[in-house]
Amino acid sequence: MNDIIKKIKSLDLSNYGNDFLLTWDKSPEELEATLLIAELLRERHRLGKPNLVFDSGLAVSIFRDNSTRTRFSFASAANALGLAVSDMDEEKSQVSHGETVRETANMISFMTRVIGIRDDMYLGEGHSYMKEVSEAVQTGFKEGVLHNRPGLINLQCDIDHPTQSMSDLAMLKNYFGSIENLRGKKIAMSWAYSPSYGKPLSVPQGIIGLLTRYGMDVTLAHPEGYSLIPEVAQLADKQAQVSDGSFNIVNDMDEAFKDADIVYPKSWAPFHVMEARTSLLKSSDKAGLQSLEQECLANNAKFTDWECTEEKMKLTRNGEALYMHCLPADITDVSCQQGEVSASVFEKYRRDTYLEASYKPFIIAAMMFLTGVKDPMVALNKLDK
Amino acid sequence: MNDIIKKIKSLDLSNYGNDFLLTWDKSPEELEATLLIAELLRERHRLGKPNLVFDSGLAVSIFRDNSTRTRFSFASAANALGLAVSDMDEEKSQVSHGETVRETANMISFMTRVIGIRDDMYLGEGHSYMKEVSEAVQTGFKEGVLHNRPGLINLQCDIDHPTQSMSDLAMLKNYFGSIENLRGKKIAMSWAYSPSYGKPLSVPQGIIGLLTRYGMDVTLAHPEGYSLIPEVAQLADKQAQVSDGSFNIVNDMDEAFKDADIVYPKSWAPFHVMEARTSLLKSSDKAGLQSLEQECLANNAKFTDWECTEEKMKLTRNGEALYMHCLPADITDVSCQQGEVSASVFEKYRRDTYLEASYKPFIIAAMMFLTGVKDPMVALNKLDK
Amino acid sequence: MNDIIKKIKSLDLSNYGNDFLLTWDKSPEELEATLLIAELLRERHRLGKPNLVFDSGLAVSIFRDNSTRTRFSFASAANALGLAVSDMDEEKSQVSHGETVRETANMISFMTRVIGIRDDMYLGEGHSYMKEVSEAVQTGFKEGVLHNRPGLINLQCDIDHPTQSMSDLAMLKNYFGSIENLRGKKIAMSWAYSPSYGKPLSVPQGIIGLLTRYGMDVTLAHPEGYSLIPEVAQLADKQAQVSDGSFNIVNDMDEAFKDADIVYPKSWAPFHVMEARTSLLKSSDKAGLQSLEQECLANNAKFTDWECTEEKMKLTRNGEALYMHCLPADITDVSCQQGEVSASVFEKYRRDTYLEASYKPFIIAAMMFLTGVKDPMVALNKLDK
Repeated sequence: MNDIIKKIKSLDLSNYGNDFLLTWDKSPEELEATLLIAELLRERHRLGKPNLVFDSGLAVSIFRDNSTRTRFSFASAANALGLAVSDMDEEKSQVSHGETVRETANMISFMTRVIGIRDDMYLGEGHSYMKEVSEAVQTGFKEGVLHNRPGLINLQCDIDHPTQSMSDLAMLKNYFGSIENLRGKKIAMSWAYSPSYGKPLSVPQGIIGLLTRYGMDVTLAHPEGYSLIPEVAQLADKQAQVSDGSFNIVNDMDEAFKDADIVYPKSWAPFHVMEARTSLLKSSDKAGLQSLEQECLANNAKFTDWECTEEKMKLTRNGEALYMHCLPADITDVSCQQGEVSASVFEKYRRDTYLEASYKPFIIAAMMFLTGVKDPMVALNKLDK
Repeated sequence: MNDIIKKIKSLDLSNYGNDFLLTWDKSPEELEATLLIAELLRERHRLGKPNLVFDSGLAVSIFRDNSTRTRFSFASAANALGLAVSDMDEEKSQVSHGETVRETANMISFMTRVIGIRDDMYLGEGHSYMKEVSEAVQTGFKEGVLHNRPGLINLQCDIDHPTQSMSDLAMLKNYFGSIENLRGKKIAMSWAYSPSYGKPLSVPQGIIGLLTRYGMDVTLAHPEGYSLIPEVAQLADKQAQVSDGSFNIVNDMDEAFKDADIVYPKSWAPFHVMEARTSLLKSSDKAGLQSLEQECLANNAKFTDWECTEEKMKLTRNGEALYMHCLPADITDVSCQQGEVSASVFEKYRRDTYLEASYKPFIIAAMMFLTGVKDPMVALNKLDK
Repeated sequence: MNDIIKKIKSLDLSNYGNDFLLTWDKSPEELEATLLIAELLRERHRLGKPNLVFDSGLAVSIFRDNSTRTRFSFASAANALGLAVSDMDEEKSQVSHGETVRETANMISFMTRVIGIRDDMYLGEGHSYMKEVSEAVQTGFKEGVLHNRPGLINLQCDIDHPTQSMSDLAMLKNYFGSIENLRGKKIAMSWAYSPSYGKPLSVPQGIIGLLTRYGMDVTLAHPEGYSLIPEVAQLADKQAQVSDGSFNIVNDMDEAFKDADIVYPKSWAPFHVMEARTSLLKSSDKAGLQSLEQECLANNAKFTDWECTEEKMKLTRNGEALYMHCLPADITDVSCQQGEVSASVFEKYRRDTYLEASYKPFIIAAMMFLTGVKDPMVALNKLDK
């Protein structure tokens, strides 16, 4: 643990931003600090040492979509640091009364240290909503309405899923020994078949938007037509150049898996489908949604062979690539008839996927720590006493 | 802060009642203690000092109507003092099993320090329900079933909304420098047009039932037919006489605004409509409710000019009266086509309304403190160590 | 309190199991430890002394059926020991995504010390589900996915209701002075009429499955056809033999009440009806459920004289048996027209039933304590400082 504390001390955190919305808006130091503090909190938790850095305060969560792991990770992180979770249930609130985002954001923040938001349903909305909340509490703080400026944590939006991608990075760091060891490693972020449609783009976007910063060989694979938001792909490309890694898009799962050190096979909806779906959802066009779903499922059905099988795993480096998933996976013959991954591959890597998920509460706690604690070093020293 | 503590010390709190249900049932000392402790807790919070007076215990909330600000204020207050919120969701409980109020009240109270209730839907019911809960826990405590007697806090009933009116009083004290400075100040508690109908009477009743105790010139304004519960108006009248203030009812918004130091324009349903609505709600008469709503909205529509506009604000003292609202306001062109207040007036006073709301968590915390702490001075001294 | 601590010290708790699922799977020492620690925590609470043994951590609750008392008892117990409750709302989770129990159990457990589950709707399911969760977290802990192995607490399943039966035992111990004094006492666990049907079997099963271990004369009474799960009745019989008590089944309420020291009149559905109901619920056969209900209610109606009246109470020892109920009771003329108990009998024993319920938060806290604390004696000594 002393090593970790030394490394944290060496970082300049004076410019740490208040929010954690998109990994690509955070500096390398901020990302490293997040990883290191997550590691420290995790190690302390393993040893049964308390991580209470706040004496009181709320951690408000706003879930506009279902969640198990992120909900419990958020609750665990808040509790570990000494905050109480208060869930904002928009149905039980007066939001329907026509209250503005600016007002609600301030009304829930008088004693709040952190606000976590999941809003991944509508393309073009989740991130915008978070920005609006962020500006509202910033103004409230400047105007003296709020004693503290709560930090925002993106618990999944339409663009990025930073608590997931940072947990994945923490897993990879641990698995391969260091962040430096990731350089040159090939990861296949691949589309995979699922019996459902309309899964968010934020996981693959989060992965290519983060891992291209570490000199990795990032290969995005999907059937034609299943492309991501163009801006994120462009960003990944640019980052790969800067980090001396590479970023490729292929339309062939086998090609992506070839010699990969890591595979991440996961279903998502095509970008243009999410756009269409968003406007149908907005206009509450149920018939339109059903017909879009039928069309998409029919199209999906052409790609049932995009499944992570033992055969496909043999294509990877020494047939031993690390299999990753944000969970829950659509497992063939377990959770569905035909899915993203075969039961035998999933079972082989089941413990690894659980471990991957186990980083999330600590990553979120680190984000809360960095946004909520005025002087991280003072807080860390206090913890040790 | 030392000044505040000195003032608190000078108060005789030996007769502090267990519950905070109606401001007019509380003595001047009790109200002053509530304000002072709220101020102290607020100042300590601003300085980052903890307000933990309980080591553990539950703060149970029962919301029989939607809420954002009061819900979060209650959660914030509980957390700040060291209590955990446990929300009683009557749909998930066995209340529907025919359990009596007496029984439920005891069953949720074994380790509970405070119970907050919002029950403002049915005229003649909210306050009665709170009294029944209060008597039940009192008996439970006397009989040795409960180790502690949880205090009740009215989070809005059919008659009063004391956490709101006390927050408003705290705002006014701060805005005008002292409670003494409120003497002779004119407040216009005015009905205002809203596109909805059936808003509770508890805010205007709470305002006239509290501010008439401080020598203010309280003017209640509403269109003919929109009167409040007669008993509360009579009480306001009596209190104004005792405090050497005044209480007037007018049917003209302009008259009320004339030379006012404070304006509080807000929609509410007429008393007799609430009575009719209550019996229709009880008999689940949907058709009756719809026809009542239609009738009321049609009647409301005659009074769209009861809007707090810049022109109306010019009538107030130097055109600079303080605009107050419990929020969310129906803002013309923002949250509705035509509402209680124009966008420009609201925007001018937006920060003030947010500040007004910011007192609520501390007011509720003060109420919790006074009902839950055996010796307030001992608890305050402990906080300082 | 020193006496209690001495007794706890004398117990060998080295084999304390992780979970509390069925009382008959727990050793006499484990049951005694649970009672003693509950008493200690209760006495400390009465004296206003804190019971915080955890610095942080989650207590996850999963309620698959309505609950008031158990929900608040669980929340109170968790809070008293320093844990935060996180309720797993399966509708808001991704359980519907086809996630396996094994996966969900681990995903909610990264910082969780205890998991409480109520699952009493389907015969043959609740206990099995709890076992599956238990095995999942055990494996997760062994595999290094979880830093701690959360303990499971059965908050009512299809077979047993140990938090209820242990609270009842604590009540009886207190009422009669000691566990030893229960030897030879007669308890009438009797079916009683209720206007509803389909109440779980877990309370009567829990009572006969626990009290037959203490040398009591346990008489189970019900109309013909209202038998419990055969295995539990057999177990009760065997235990009664071992403990030198007795276990009898009669079809006559009067016979059961005759000379009873304690009566526990309560409605339940016949075992075979619960089986039929379970398969209808599983196949979502609404018509089938309605016709089953009609049939059962018609059958129930033959036994409206199975009511605990003053007359029946006269049959008991000196007419002064202790009346017990898990609450809420169906009280004639109070919560229904005709129910399990007359208003006068219930009112006479109302305080006793509330006291009976008051043990539950402490019993649950004791279960949490014993599963979550590594060295109970160290923890108890720390509490005292």
